Amino acid sequence: MTQANAPAGPRSTLVITAHAGDFVWRAGGAIALAASRGEKVTIACLTFGERGESAKAWREGRKLDEIKAIRRDEAERAAATLGAEVRFFDAGDYPLLVTPELTDRLVEVYRDTQPDVVLTHPVEDPYNGDHPAASRMALEARVLAQAIGYPGPGEIIGAPPVFFFEPHQPEMSGFKPEVLLDITEVWDTKRKAMECLAAQQHLWDYYTDLAVRRGVQLKRNAGPNLGLAHRTMAEAYMRPYPQIAKELA
Amino acid sequence: MTQANAPAGPRSTLVITAHAGDFVWRAGGAIALAASRGEKVTIACLTFGERGESAKAWREGRKLDEIKAIRRDEAERAAATLGAEVRFFDAGDYPLLVTPELTDRLVEVYRDTQPDVVLTHPVEDPYNGDHPAASRMALEARVLAQAIGYPGPGEIIGAPPVFFFEPHQPEMSGFKPEVLLDITEVWDTKRKAMECLAAQQHLWDYYTDLAVRRGVQLKRNAGPNLGLAHRTMAEAYMRPYPQIAKELA
Amino acid sequence: MTQANAPAGPRSTLVITAHAGDFVWRAGGAIALAASRGEKVTIACLTFGERGESAKAWREGRKLDEIKAIRRDEAERAAATLGAEVRFFDAGDYPLLVTPELTDRLVEVYRDTQPDVVLTHPVEDPYNGDHPAASRMALEARVLAQAIGYPGPGEIIGAPPVFFFEPHQPEMSGFKPEVLLDITEVWDTKRKAMECLAAQQHLWDYYTDLAVRRGVQLKRNAGPNLGLAHRTMAEAYMRPYPQIAKELA
Amino acid sequence: MTQANAPAGPRSTLVITAHAGDFVWRAGGAIALAASRGEKVTIACLTFGERGESAKAWREGRKLDEIKAIRRDEAERAAATLGAEVRFFDAGDYPLLVTPELTDRLVEVYRDTQPDVVLTHPVEDPYNGDHPAASRMALEARVLAQAIGYPGPGEIIGAPPVFFFEPHQPEMSGFKPEVLLDITEVWDTKRKAMECLAAQQHLWDYYTDLAVRRGVQLKRNAGPNLGLAHRTMAEAYMRPYPQIAKELA
Amino acid sequence: MTQANAPAGPRSTLVITAHAGDFVWRAGGAIALAASRGEKVTIACLTFGERGESAKAWREGRKLDEIKAIRRDEAERAAATLGAEVRFFDAGDYPLLVTPELTDRLVEVYRDTQPDVVLTHPVEDPYNGDHPAASRMALEARVLAQAIGYPGPGEIIGAPPVFFFEPHQPEMSGFKPEVLLDITEVWDTKRKAMECLAAQQHLWDYYTDLAVRRGVQLKRNAGPNLGLAHRTMAEAYMRPYPQIAKELA
Amino acid sequence: MTQANAPAGPRSTLVITAHAGDFVWRAGGAIALAASRGEKVTIACLTFGERGESAKAWREGRKLDEIKAIRRDEAERAAATLGAEVRFFDAGDYPLLVTPELTDRLVEVYRDTQPDVVLTHPVEDPYNGDHPAASRMALEARVLAQAIGYPGPGEIIGAPPVFFFEPHQPEMSGFKPEVLLDITEVWDTKRKAMECLAAQQHLWDYYTDLAVRRGVQLKRNAGPNLGLAHRTMAEAYMRPYPQIAKELA
Repeated sequence: MTQANAPAGPRSTLVITAHAGDFVWRAGGAIALAASRGEKVTIACLTFGERGESAKAWREGRKLDEIKAIRRDEAERAAATLGAEVRFFDAGDYPLLVTPELTDRLVEVYRDTQPDVVLTHPVEDPYNGDHPAASRMALEARVLAQAIGYPGPGEIIGAPPVFFFEPHQPEMSGFKPEVLLDITEVWDTKRKAMECLAAQQHLWDYYTDLAVRRGVQLKRNAGPNLGLAHRTMAEAYMRPYPQIAKELA
Repeated sequence: MTQANAPAGPRSTLVITAHAGDFVWRAGGAIALAASRGEKVTIACLTFGERGESAKAWREGRKLDEIKAIRRDEAERAAATLGAEVRFFDAGDYPLLVTPELTDRLVEVYRDTQPDVVLTHPVEDPYNGDHPAASRMALEARVLAQAIGYPGPGEIIGAPPVFFFEPHQPEMSGFKPEVLLDITEVWDTKRKAMECLAAQQHLWDYYTDLAVRRGVQLKRNAGPNLGLAHRTMAEAYMRPYPQIAKELA
Repeated sequence: MTQANAPAGPRSTLVITAHAGDFVWRAGGAIALAASRGEKVTIACLTFGERGESAKAWREGRKLDEIKAIRRDEAERAAATLGAEVRFFDAGDYPLLVTPELTDRLVEVYRDTQPDVVLTHPVEDPYNGDHPAASRMALEARVLAQAIGYPGPGEIIGAPPVFFFEPHQPEMSGFKPEVLLDITEVWDTKRKAMECLAAQQHLWDYYTDLAVRRGVQLKRNAGPNLGLAHRTMAEAYMRPYPQIAKELA
Repeated sequence: MTQANAPAGPRSTLVITAHAGDFVWRAGGAIALAASRGEKVTIACLTFGERGESAKAWREGRKLDEIKAIRRDEAERAAATLGAEVRFFDAGDYPLLVTPELTDRLVEVYRDTQPDVVLTHPVEDPYNGDHPAASRMALEARVLAQAIGYPGPGEIIGAPPVFFFEPHQPEMSGFKPEVLLDITEVWDTKRKAMECLAAQQHLWDYYTDLAVRRGVQLKRNAGPNLGLAHRTMAEAYMRPYPQIAKELA
Repeated sequence: MTQANAPAGPRSTLVITAHAGDFVWRAGGAIALAASRGEKVTIACLTFGERGESAKAWREGRKLDEIKAIRRDEAERAAATLGAEVRFFDAGDYPLLVTPELTDRLVEVYRDTQPDVVLTHPVEDPYNGDHPAASRMALEARVLAQAIGYPGPGEIIGAPPVFFFEPHQPEMSGFKPEVLLDITEVWDTKRKAMECLAAQQHLWDYYTDLAVRRGVQLKRNAGPNLGLAHRTMAEAYMRPYPQIAKELA
Repeated sequence: MTQANAPAGPRSTLVITAHAGDFVWRAGGAIALAASRGEKVTIACLTFGERGESAKAWREGRKLDEIKAIRRDEAERAAATLGAEVRFFDAGDYPLLVTPELTDRLVEVYRDTQPDVVLTHPVEDPYNGDHPAASRMALEARVLAQAIGYPGPGEIIGAPPVFFFEPHQPEMSGFKPEVLLDITEVWDTKRKAMECLAAQQHLWDYYTDLAVRRGVQLKRNAGPNLGLAHRTMAEAYMRPYPQIAKELA
């Protein structure tokens, strides 16, 4: 769904997340799939999760800058494993504040990357206010980047589809799976990327189990005889905007 | 998404509607698109709409059987125009009653047609109780037809995706477009099918305008530079079950 | 909003309720107001509430027929006090069953009374299944009565607005006040009608307090300087269908 | 519903919108109707829509100030056609920011115009964040303007009813028609006002079709025999606060 | 919350389910906990799940009666393991029909067991219509059993709290965890009961993983320092009626 | 649910409110109950309600500081009557602004008081924007106070349960009673505390009636034979997070 008059190039995916680890746990499969097809994936990481998602490091007595450096390093290795580029905004977490300046920086990223697909957090999460903050800015910047009257470098963008990835407590965050993405063929890559996040080892199995469960759900929604692998792994997404289709399937 | 061990054949679409005209106004584009790709489309028409959707004929003093015959004839010509087969159940409308017997007849249709895609009414419609009744039976029969323990002829089915087509008053029926289907290339066929329904001439332009409006919405959600036809025509659908995907797009 | 070609006559209100007391507690003010303007009000009372709403009589050892007779007598006196006619269907309560036959009898009432306004229960009530049952049949019969093809005596009706009156536990029944009706001027009449229901004396003050509270809410939503009586009494209603207006007010 | 101790005068309507064209497309009928009854209508236009709603002008290479001047001129002519006064706030669009200062300026407008009716955008619009921003400030300023303790010139206001007008993609913005306003008699005026907006000619027919469709819906909800014009034109509104009524109708 | 004038006895829990296995997967922990406290637990099992939940047996070519016997045997052993009594209604599954007769039989069970707590399916499940059917009858029978006027043997009941247990696809069934029950201390018993269901071995690990995930959620909602076991196991429930409390905790 | 490694002490309740009177009308019973059990209750009062909730004083011509002093005095006496400590933030009302600084001050209160239970406003209130503002900051500060990486004095907190108390217009604020708290035994104390608020005498009876109505609802949800006092008084609450339970009851 690239723009008609854009220079022909590989498809582009833009992932906007609050913290350094989010893109791995929640969208690692989608990223690896896109990369495996030769597409470009850019991750806009608004903070390192240095205050809210690094409890272990704080308990070990590390300093703020040290923690940021660790998280950056982990995230860079995970992104490389998945086949994506990661850009850090260092906007400060807990709380991540919604500001016109940060939104404007995201407009620039949109215009620079010209995404065909956008991935971000859902708009609700009663357990972590940074996630909705990132989501709001991601959605607003997408609209602003479409307007020829909005100033700044780069070309305006089209209206790329948006997908919300799964929050930690889906039912408490109004999350309902609307798309089940089959990530079986890139599962090993996602697992390797997760293992780059050494500080959160307890989550490796947690998110492996989640992928199994979403895989079971995928099979249940696809029918028993679909010829799916015995162990299908999946990620769940929501669509805030309607799907554009040439065929019902 | 045909079943792995089903005999290889063209894809099959099953449309389940309450009244004789519903499949034309609401899903004529999807039907014509599928037929144009060489697929099989079967319409299960539960009633002729003889009481609730034939005011003009009643005002002209026609009898019940006469009205049924007129509606049947119109629907058959419209289906032929679209490239589909229509089966009539003559279950009686206004009200269409939800019964185990009628649901069982739908199970047989499911097993007979082995659909890859199912189209029906949404579950809510405060203006016409026959539509939710048809929807409830369509959904229940789909589940029953999947169970090897449910008796009856034919093979069990998989879990084909379901699409709800647009009701007459979408906002009052909880209808939110989740899929916008581009029907521009078969628009002339849909218009011809609508014109088979002579008794409801006032709706020809109404549903043409609706297709234009959904087309504008499609373009707005797809971005301004998508290379779409100047006048894109569209139909809107909801998905009650998650989409199964190999790629986010 | 009488029909253009209907014989000119007073406006007609139709109230459809599950049990004998419902119209008094929940809509007594609206009924008295309409009657005070010289309009016709007909109450279709589907059951006497003989099993589910007559605990006191059962504890006193009364028999079924005796209880029905008591409830009928009370309801007739309350209706007369309000200025309305009540028709009993004796369909059996706890549970009140949704049937095509009872719905058909309601179609006849619609066509006979040609209502300009319809009042009934909301569609949800987790504390009493008879209320949703009555509501479903009231709504379905209204649609059937509009269809020239639906058989039976009388003229078809238009599309009179429907109002849901307030259930016993509004927040648990999805009830949100959409219309606050000022019943101050007929309050004494409503109180007298409530006092006809001797068996439920504990509810007299309960529903008086409710009218005060809805009156406070009315004043809060109308502004402090509206020139309202110091003690405004009100009833709350929902509208399942859009209001038709000549002016925003 | 004027305040008891306000100087007797014509009724006053206040319309608060994000961009220069909004009041024409979405509420032009309601404005023309009020003006035709001799009432006062004031439009508070927070921005000119210079960045987000002026793509054509930007593509033609015009400058910011030039674009603002064009939009101002168009809006003034449209307002004059409808019979209303328009006040510009020039607060900057795309994004329109929610600030205490702008909200305070709206409080002054409320106290100055003493509205009997308020019209504004709905609180949700995933396609344009300026609309919810305008709506939030309109609602908050209305509450502040009621408080005697809130400082500033003018008298406090009552609690005028609020109506949300229809957004561009109603189903995606949680918009459900709760009031259908018959604008048939002022339709020509609304069309003339739309034609003042030369830069958006493609919308003239779009909003004409919408008025037809809402008119069909009005007739369907009012009954077939209401004596309505063959071609009824309508606008749809929501009510965020309960209606205060003296009669159910 | 036993009734004041009921004969003093152990607390009583009533579990109403559609199929033979439901009480094990979904509420086995709650049942084992109650039994471990010396309370009485009665399971009303409306069908054996002979058609819809026994695919493996049908594929092995077994007959209907044989399958029922297998499922009954498995369920009885699982119930005994948990410490509960199970009563079979053999009402026929796929579809389980909502009937006044079956509802009436449930009223008798309510009056016979005088439950202090009721467990059943949620009211929505788009994947299996038998679950909502069981839920509707369980809720309606509870209300009927409270009415002194409803005929039948036994004493009327109070208003025991109701808990909905977790469906297979929670997000698709409107299920949101409102109570997280710590079942760590009876986990081994639940696992043993699951292992009685030999035909569904693939679910043993699935529901073990679910209990781990709900346990993680319990810990997240209880705070990190609550002194909980390293591996807390939990079940999730919803409350359709308000909790009655003497203390906020 | 105190933290395992916290110094053993009485349980602690934290109440966060927008205005000086809120804790009395809406949570006075819960506060008095906790105090009567020897627990510590701290009220964080963000503003005095000097502009928005002091109409009477403004009409009497009092000055801002005078009004603040009156409200402070009343609130202190009411808190003392209930057995709680009140802390004033004087952040300015109408509008109460959401700021990182005020949120940070709340984080300090959380860490200082180490609450086992938190009470605050619901997140929606279309009649008073200060209430949602207070709620948002209360919820966000609770999450920040849990993070070891968030700077500031004091120990991090666990995840204490949150309860929303009842707003003035519950149905318009999305409020549904999820917990009905029996406050009969401390009712006299709550009434005395209400009577400390001399400026709002008209609310004394209003909130007494509300307590009666919620008491009737409590009895209806608890069953007729629960041995409850003839006149049970209650307060209603919502739970935004799941309840953690050792037993279903």
